[in-house]
Amino acid sequence: MEKRIITISREFGSGGRSIGREVAAKLGIPFYDSELVEKIALETGFAPSFVEEHGEHAPSASRLSYAFAHAGVPGVMNGMSAADFLWSIQCSVILQLAEQGPCVIVGRNADYILKDRTDCLDVYIHAPDEARAERIVRLYGQSEKSIESRIQEKDKRRRINYQHYTGRTWGQAQNYDLCLDSAALGMERCVDIIISCYK
Amino acid sequence: MEKRIITISREFGSGGRSIGREVAAKLGIPFYDSELVEKIALETGFAPSFVEEHGEHAPSASRLSYAFAHAGVPGVMNGMSAADFLWSIQCSVILQLAEQGPCVIVGRNADYILKDRTDCLDVYIHAPDEARAERIVRLYGQSEKSIESRIQEKDKRRRINYQHYTGRTWGQAQNYDLCLDSAALGMERCVDIIISCYK
Repeated sequence: MEKRIITISREFGSGGRSIGREVAAKLGIPFYDSELVEKIALETGFAPSFVEEHGEHAPSASRLSYAFAHAGVPGVMNGMSAADFLWSIQCSVILQLAEQGPCVIVGRNADYILKDRTDCLDVYIHAPDEARAERIVRLYGQSEKSIESRIQEKDKRRRINYQHYTGRTWGQAQNYDLCLDSAALGMERCVDIIISCYK
Repeated sequence: MEKRIITISREFGSGGRSIGREVAAKLGIPFYDSELVEKIALETGFAPSFVEEHGEHAPSASRLSYAFAHAGVPGVMNGMSAADFLWSIQCSVILQLAEQGPCVIVGRNADYILKDRTDCLDVYIHAPDEARAERIVRLYGQSEKSIESRIQEKDKRRRINYQHYTGRTWGQAQNYDLCLDSAALGMERCVDIIISCYK
């Protein structure tokens, strides 16, 4: 069946978001990432910064989520923790977006959320630590934390979140149609390969 | 750096061997698989059938290896188990083959053995169980064992062997430049993608 949706999961600093944006631009289809965050934020009533911070992170990593759950709006959240509530809204938004037509969705475990569709091309972008470190510093600058601990922390939180909500192992090739090392292959070639598999 | 060597690791029944053979034919470079087995067999003095059976399988799965180790040629094997001896010869053969010039090597943990070279394109081919089952029965026919247990057994042995000798996790995307689902993408497209990444 012809593919309509491209989901891109990516390691922090691998350039997966840029690759996804470029693919969407070249195919002339919508790209959902920060746009998606805003949409989810609107539906949950959470601040966009909260959704950005917790949408792909481990539930247990967030003390705030418990504070939300206890102090929040019990009627709306149905007794769920804020993290679980956010997850259920995220699922519903992503399922709706996929229904609307062809698009590229980066992150947010979209590969798993859309697993029952047969028109998804699921892509995983990764790169060795040195290449990611170089890219992160170039794009986001230095911070107080060492670059190694920034990478480890982000990876760990995405991995735990993915495992918690999907029961799958993060980065396992079998979960994706296509896994690409963006440093070894180059960003442009990754874009070309994804487009060639979409058509 | 331009790639010279392509290593292909593959799930049983995913068609990785056929894809590798086709890539080698299209690029006009040598393809090593059964040829490699024979070469290893000649150097070890083991029967080709023994090498074929144990070259990618878990050391502990083989009672024969202990029998060999005790009854065998102690001077040549330096006190190693037959499996470890076979591994060391396998490493040496693969390192030599890579030195000789461009080639495609299927299986035998070549991705790991050649990890210090910068001119390797490391590929992992996988497919969902149903697609693999269909292919295995079509190519190799039915046997007394159920198709599910044949797949599980082969996968398990390759996984344990890989982990034992490399310390890595089998099928983890980060170990490869390129991971492809041959059922989702189609065999021909896999061949084309690998060739486009080689050039």
